[in-house]
Amino acid sequence: MKQPIHGGNLVWAAAQIGCPVSSIVDFSASINPLGPPQSVLAAIQTALDTLKHYPDPYYLKLRQALSQWHQLPSDWILPGNGAAELLTWAGRELAQEQQTYVMTPGFRDYWRGLQAFGATITPISFPWQTANCFDLLDNCPETDAGIIINNPHNPTGKLFTTETLLSLLERFNLVVVDEAFMDFVPPSQQQSLIPVIEDYPNLVILRSLTKFYSLPGLRLGYAIAHPHRLQQWQTWRDPWPVNSLAVHAGIAAIQDEAFTQQTRQWLLSAYQQLFTGLSQIQGLEPIPSSVNFILVKTQIPSSQLQLKLLQKYRILIRDCLSFETLGDRYFRIAVRTVEDNNKLLEGLLTIFS
Amino acid sequence: MKQPIHGGNLVWAAAQIGCPVSSIVDFSASINPLGPPQSVLAAIQTALDTLKHYPDPYYLKLRQALSQWHQLPSDWILPGNGAAELLTWAGRELAQEQQTYVMTPGFRDYWRGLQAFGATITPISFPWQTANCFDLLDNCPETDAGIIINNPHNPTGKLFTTETLLSLLERFNLVVVDEAFMDFVPPSQQQSLIPVIEDYPNLVILRSLTKFYSLPGLRLGYAIAHPHRLQQWQTWRDPWPVNSLAVHAGIAAIQDEAFTQQTRQWLLSAYQQLFTGLSQIQGLEPIPSSVNFILVKTQIPSSQLQLKLLQKYRILIRDCLSFETLGDRYFRIAVRTVEDNNKLLEGLLTIFS
Repeated sequence: MKQPIHGGNLVWAAAQIGCPVSSIVDFSASINPLGPPQSVLAAIQTALDTLKHYPDPYYLKLRQALSQWHQLPSDWILPGNGAAELLTWAGRELAQEQQTYVMTPGFRDYWRGLQAFGATITPISFPWQTANCFDLLDNCPETDAGIIINNPHNPTGKLFTTETLLSLLERFNLVVVDEAFMDFVPPSQQQSLIPVIEDYPNLVILRSLTKFYSLPGLRLGYAIAHPHRLQQWQTWRDPWPVNSLAVHAGIAAIQDEAFTQQTRQWLLSAYQQLFTGLSQIQGLEPIPSSVNFILVKTQIPSSQLQLKLLQKYRILIRDCLSFETLGDRYFRIAVRTVEDNNKLLEGLLTIFS
Repeated sequence: MKQPIHGGNLVWAAAQIGCPVSSIVDFSASINPLGPPQSVLAAIQTALDTLKHYPDPYYLKLRQALSQWHQLPSDWILPGNGAAELLTWAGRELAQEQQTYVMTPGFRDYWRGLQAFGATITPISFPWQTANCFDLLDNCPETDAGIIINNPHNPTGKLFTTETLLSLLERFNLVVVDEAFMDFVPPSQQQSLIPVIEDYPNLVILRSLTKFYSLPGLRLGYAIAHPHRLQQWQTWRDPWPVNSLAVHAGIAAIQDEAFTQQTRQWLLSAYQQLFTGLSQIQGLEPIPSSVNFILVKTQIPSSQLQLKLLQKYRILIRDCLSFETLGDRYFRIAVRTVEDNNKLLEGLLTIFS
């Protein structure tokens, strides 16, 4: 079985050590450990009756719910089969530019989405350790170019400011901002471009509902962009990309304020616990993060560490082999419950002592 | 709200007459009225626990189940987010040919999948009323061409023989056969190309699990083709196109032999009942069909008929406006339960008398 290039591949992990998938504690996918919310599971139950019908191809109810949530006209919103499906069409758009800038390290699937349509990719080695990571971009030649970036950034957890991104919008033909993890940032600190979307026809925002609401198995994301662009995407893809259970789950999820509050409270303390614990282990250096995952520099190669944790503790961490420039010197972990975090910290402590 | 170009748009229908979606009897989408099977609903229930994990990007278990069912190596099978998603990638392949032949009348989404990638489309006005519908193809110039065809054919219900299709495989660079409704044909009469797939690298077969097992809201289909081709498709699309509930539902569905038997028994008698009833109504002429839907020639324009049935009986039929060459002179209906069929027949009888 091939080494996975994405987090959350529990089938692979279980096969490595010959145990059931359910016995593995998954730190490799950055999913909220508190979910899915009960309200969402109840909505899915109720919606089972609708499976014998096709989804509404216009996804009106879901679009209206998202429209109300973001205070945006509903034709600026296009639901997708996970943000990953929408990335495919963003890749197709970007491929029409003379070149597309992609930050490294960065999410591997950006390359897939771009290469699928023959894009000319210009990687920018992204100095995430320094304060102003966009210095390099200032030296880019003025050309018909696009850029794809995620904010907060995966896997570093760095949060770009709105100002930084606005300067990109002035200089690039097309800017795709993947905000898959933005919901994990406390509201007062969020740097989403949604409030300015109507001013920038050259902006595409991608959002995910499966990380915050713990539904990666159900697949649900959405794009926010100019209606003309989204209408074009709809001619590229099939009429029913989002399943009906995801539709009902999404509507219930964004209305569940209590779950949102609970998640924010958990993350505040669990992040602090995990970060402090990691800092105290000699041989590890966690990188401060704005979200629910932490990039960690390690003196033991991460692939070795991954195997040890899997074999001894049934814990799966994310090696960084698929993130260019990071390789074996880093791993990424999700923030999980205090109990799970302790289990990981104990395992790491044993290995590093 | 726009007039739908696909069947099963209950949201549109309900809005036309201001009633809840659930009160409409849907003859417009050709879905098995007996499902979803209890075994499938139970599998979905059990799988709710897995939603917090990503699906296995290789979909190994589902592929293995399908592989066993069809007696094919599993790398010849690629699950998709409904057959409709796979049609997108089939369209991309066909667009690489100098031209692609598409039969008219035919499923509208073939045009979408082809046009999405700039294919040169050559429509063939398909003489489905006559015995040998491929006569026209014999006059096609020898060229680098592809063809997409469905078998059984939608909306006529005509079943092409394996021999007819094999002759296409000798003459076309790429042949895509959409077998979405093949499961509804009695096994002894089926004309699937699956048994010969390994002999034809220029063949792609598309299959659906949502029509026979009544799961259009869940989205599940698969392609059968040479592994090289399917590997290429995987580089075009995102890593997790099929949701986890569809995975578990699909595995349970194809193992439910009792449901299959029950469906075959129902269809045999319900089709006969509906066809005979339609034949007895002056002004209607049903076309003999090999599957679970019937194309009907009507002396009252089908759009008028659709509205009347909707307003008076909350019954939705499929007009044929989106099927070129058929227009307002035909409508298509699914075979439903004996009780529903009677309701439709009574409505039609009143309108036509």
